[in-house]
Amino acid sequence: MSLQSRLIEPPLAEGPQASFAAQLKGWQARIEHELSARLPSIDVQPSRLHEAIRYSVLGGGKRVRPTLVYATGAALGIPESNLDAAACAVELIHAYSLVHDDLPAMDNDDLRRGRPTCHKAFDEATAILVGDSLQVLAFELLASDAGAPADPAVRLKLVQLLAVASGTNGMAGGQALDLAAIGRKLSVADVEEMHVRKTGALIHAAVMMAAACAPHLSETIWRALEDYARAIGLAFQIQDDLLDVEGDVAVIGKATGADRALDKPTYPSVAGVETSRQRMQELHARALAALEVSGLQAAPLAAMSDWLVLRKY
Amino acid sequence: MSLQSRLIEPPLAEGPQASFAAQLKGWQARIEHELSARLPSIDVQPSRLHEAIRYSVLGGGKRVRPTLVYATGAALGIPESNLDAAACAVELIHAYSLVHDDLPAMDNDDLRRGRPTCHKAFDEATAILVGDSLQVLAFELLASDAGAPADPAVRLKLVQLLAVASGTNGMAGGQALDLAAIGRKLSVADVEEMHVRKTGALIHAAVMMAAACAPHLSETIWRALEDYARAIGLAFQIQDDLLDVEGDVAVIGKATGADRALDKPTYPSVAGVETSRQRMQELHARALAALEVSGLQAAPLAAMSDWLVLRKY
Repeated sequence: MSLQSRLIEPPLAEGPQASFAAQLKGWQARIEHELSARLPSIDVQPSRLHEAIRYSVLGGGKRVRPTLVYATGAALGIPESNLDAAACAVELIHAYSLVHDDLPAMDNDDLRRGRPTCHKAFDEATAILVGDSLQVLAFELLASDAGAPADPAVRLKLVQLLAVASGTNGMAGGQALDLAAIGRKLSVADVEEMHVRKTGALIHAAVMMAAACAPHLSETIWRALEDYARAIGLAFQIQDDLLDVEGDVAVIGKATGADRALDKPTYPSVAGVETSRQRMQELHARALAALEVSGLQAAPLAAMSDWLVLRKY
Repeated sequence: MSLQSRLIEPPLAEGPQASFAAQLKGWQARIEHELSARLPSIDVQPSRLHEAIRYSVLGGGKRVRPTLVYATGAALGIPESNLDAAACAVELIHAYSLVHDDLPAMDNDDLRRGRPTCHKAFDEATAILVGDSLQVLAFELLASDAGAPADPAVRLKLVQLLAVASGTNGMAGGQALDLAAIGRKLSVADVEEMHVRKTGALIHAAVMMAAACAPHLSETIWRALEDYARAIGLAFQIQDDLLDVEGDVAVIGKATGADRALDKPTYPSVAGVETSRQRMQELHARALAALEVSGLQAAPLAAMSDWLVLRKY
């Protein structure tokens, strides 16, 4: 099956793609609801901070990471009600990283998801505290929230996976490499390393956190999911870089060409657009191949990989 | 015993005070060592971020929170090797909060522990990432580090206690109230609420995390420690406010009068210096009274309360 024929966006009228599109929409609605229920109310002090937290998390975004949690859960037959805490936690970490990355001292972005960034809508101090609060709320949910398996060992594994993915070996380290790369000439390997940490680690965590919620998962399936997650994590970021070069601001909801304007090395700027597309499709194929293992419903994860690679925003 | 006769700073030549001073010094040396062993090496990429992390955490500070972990452990007979992860985690959260609070958008401080603040010694983007990385490292240690009881349920309780203390109901919320209070007129109750969240919550967590590491702790001792922790948390911050009014910059290692300069309401500015001193001593007495419960070695915690209330920096 070619990449194009498996395109799920825009949703087709019938067939498995249409049913996945509906499933994806369902997960996106679910995570919006579950996040909203877990964020602090603006009726509680400090209300301005709580307002900024809700502003930064709710009302938009593709919800790639939490939908990956649910899709992995669907592949493994885990009830969604046991995945909500993990789905929310990984999205809160992502949301905090966006708020902090947008700050003037970092990427200095004014627009996010078609709206003013947190520090523009509120102020810088509030944006710093929003990120700090979202990060800690993620770990609080994994420790205490009802929407996860009751077994403390499972929950601790969730904390571990999310923490490793977010720290200096993962997302925060990737952002540091990204900032250090501005104006420098990197190799393709350097850019991959940066992407693997900055974006790949959290995508990987989303898949593996769901896997950690499955009782009695075989080592073979665990490893297959690791391969899958690593491949889509990098493919996703290459597509992000390509969209930054080629995308339409009205569709993406943030400024395009931002990386070029900041003189940031990206996959296409280092490897060229054509090579980037090839690398992305190679990773996509590797992700699909990883799913060919018994005991796993490949369909939802294959469709997720299609979506992430073929998306236009 | 009067407050003055129990003064442990400067250390006396003999008697129980001298032995506590030696114990305190031992814990301070221990935490320095344990932190250093757990912080990422500057030989590993991203090395500048790792350097800034080590700069921000090591080489100074009273180590109030980790020494409280060890003191509570001593009161309950817990081996120090089972407390290192909790002691490090609570200090990492404290260290992250200092780095972020010092940022220009927050309190805009140039000096901390007698040295340039992180964003002055490095840059703002690095300081933001240092705080983010320290926060996540704290939770990683609680999930994975050898220096905690093996029982996943205990570790999960540690995550829970630290997360609640750090979030919008605790430290981050307290900092938001603190920023919102600049230039406003607060009541004594408002200032207490702000202090309880901003400083008290993490002090409370330090004591209760150690308590969570004790096997089979009675509900009575748990509650006694909660009362103790709440009392010293507020007393500690009132003393901080008093030192800001009266202290000596050379001893404290940061600018004094900073709260006044920022027009921040403090305990003395709202209640007056004399009332603040009385309130602090009342809390100190309450802390000591809480320790009068069987099954608890009161001495180390009583000495900690003395130290926190009578300290000059």
